[in-house]
Amino acid sequence: MKGTMLYGPRDVRFEERPDPSIIEPTDAIIQLSAACVCGSDLWPYRGIDPVRQPVPMGHEYVGIVEEVGSAVRNIKPGQFVVGSFFASDNTCEICRSGYQSACIHRQPGAPTGAQAEYARIPLADGTLVATPGLPSADLIPSLLSASDVFGTGWFAADAATAGPGKTVAVVGDGAVGLCAVIAARQMGAERIIAMSRHSDRQKLALEFGATDIVTERGDEGVAKIKELTGGLGAHSVIEAVGTQESMMQAIHSTRPGGHVGFVGVLHGVEIPGAPYFFSHVHLHGGPAPVRRYLPELIDLIWNRKINPGKVFDLTLPLAQVAEGYRAMDERRAIKALLRP
Amino acid sequence: MKGTMLYGPRDVRFEERPDPSIIEPTDAIIQLSAACVCGSDLWPYRGIDPVRQPVPMGHEYVGIVEEVGSAVRNIKPGQFVVGSFFASDNTCEICRSGYQSACIHRQPGAPTGAQAEYARIPLADGTLVATPGLPSADLIPSLLSASDVFGTGWFAADAATAGPGKTVAVVGDGAVGLCAVIAARQMGAERIIAMSRHSDRQKLALEFGATDIVTERGDEGVAKIKELTGGLGAHSVIEAVGTQESMMQAIHSTRPGGHVGFVGVLHGVEIPGAPYFFSHVHLHGGPAPVRRYLPELIDLIWNRKINPGKVFDLTLPLAQVAEGYRAMDERRAIKALLRP
Repeated sequence: MKGTMLYGPRDVRFEERPDPSIIEPTDAIIQLSAACVCGSDLWPYRGIDPVRQPVPMGHEYVGIVEEVGSAVRNIKPGQFVVGSFFASDNTCEICRSGYQSACIHRQPGAPTGAQAEYARIPLADGTLVATPGLPSADLIPSLLSASDVFGTGWFAADAATAGPGKTVAVVGDGAVGLCAVIAARQMGAERIIAMSRHSDRQKLALEFGATDIVTERGDEGVAKIKELTGGLGAHSVIEAVGTQESMMQAIHSTRPGGHVGFVGVLHGVEIPGAPYFFSHVHLHGGPAPVRRYLPELIDLIWNRKINPGKVFDLTLPLAQVAEGYRAMDERRAIKALLRP
Repeated sequence: MKGTMLYGPRDVRFEERPDPSIIEPTDAIIQLSAACVCGSDLWPYRGIDPVRQPVPMGHEYVGIVEEVGSAVRNIKPGQFVVGSFFASDNTCEICRSGYQSACIHRQPGAPTGAQAEYARIPLADGTLVATPGLPSADLIPSLLSASDVFGTGWFAADAATAGPGKTVAVVGDGAVGLCAVIAARQMGAERIIAMSRHSDRQKLALEFGATDIVTERGDEGVAKIKELTGGLGAHSVIEAVGTQESMMQAIHSTRPGGHVGFVGVLHGVEIPGAPYFFSHVHLHGGPAPVRRYLPELIDLIWNRKINPGKVFDLTLPLAQVAEGYRAMDERRAIKALLRP
């Protein structure tokens, strides 16, 4: 088959790869229906996370089950499935508490890479969720988004306890931040403030349910959020970037007793103890336990209540994956969908 | 009157001070029935927090109302009252959400100092809670503890979501940590692991409801907590010290999805982003909103369901306040009660 490898900074190659095969009896092989490039793929692409040897890329996927291992009970060949970026058994005590992305048997979600024609998925029964039937083509982008970007935005909104009567601020206007706007709206938030300085992203945020746009960043962004919330700060703030500035912007935009849900992979961040102590802000986040939310998210998408697939503003044949990375790196695209 | 002033590191003086008087119409003047030395008083006492000018000391108090300002409606002269270390209006939006220690009109709880014969209490109606009547002498230490040390331990246990079925670990065997053991027990925790290497404190922790004692600290302490919890970590961890080591010990002792409640005033702490991101741990804490809990805590104490006053293992006449600081600094006493 053909698949995507990252050889080093900005060196993405779509090349011949071994066909994945069942290794563990709990594995499944899926034929990808769609894949995409993740914001987190840009960390190694840009050389910020070091690449020591060529690595298969892609961890967001939807596809049709081709084959299952002898121990797989619930997932069947022919099913259309959604997975996520960690494989989990979904039976351990940590999974049962809703933290499948910290499963005690956690594995990479698609170790052979999901920006490919086929992928091996470990722990298939615990990881994959089948849709009610084969989806029509227009549902595929949204189902794909549930696999990571929307599942992550949903977790961020949940971790920030978005809900009725709440004012929610979203730091970061990438695909995850935009998906968090959908999630906050769906959870019933009264007011949703998207922090963005890009007009195309502002437009999408408003379409997804944002009620206010703030273009300021850093201390000015914090001051603006305070101004919009009677001097108190937002009840719930979503951090979807992962830098020191964005994390502190999120903490300082939150009122005492409020919640920050953070999902931007923290890079070089140190949270200073004393100001955090006196902020009275709840912090929760990390790699989203997407599996916890998949049944609910698939249901919302299947019934066309939400359309998070709109975050894909570039669709390319899988063979042009390198252009997908370039477009996202250069901010010409919010998120690139790849069609095998 | 006489009161306590800190002039510099280890220089505590009990000396003649002006009688406090009503300044704002929302003030009350109380005659102290008991006061005490706080673990946080030791930061300036030891010179870790700089002392630039002589400061009146003491912020934990119970006493009898002597006089109230013209705008005070609910608190009456003659009542026995419990307050806490921040004065709050108890009517603003932040107070109503339960964060009175971040009240938008917050003031120091006893600006004239509570290690004294009399104290001025700002925002008396929002800050003070009267007991059902004059307490018998044996209840006074516990009522005093509710003012800070026990109220803080209770908030820590609440922030850590201690409750039925939960394993709770407590980092720090000072008075706050010991009070957090009482709180966790009262909240129905199944197992309470006190981390302590002092036999007198271990004994008190067990009497308060701890089920296990761990003497190891740092990484060894974390390993021991993991060993006691099937490799997963505790559900709820209380941080009652405030150093880098204790904070990281708390985070790493918590299972994914679990909660750290931190109340040790963070000194020189930086929480490293990447390990925290991947820990999946909820963080919440800060200066305890004691006022939120006072009615419930007074009720529990009044009905003799709990006896947190046992953390006072040294009772001194107020005039010997300097010896109270010395005894706590040298760890000869867990906590010193002062009788005017």
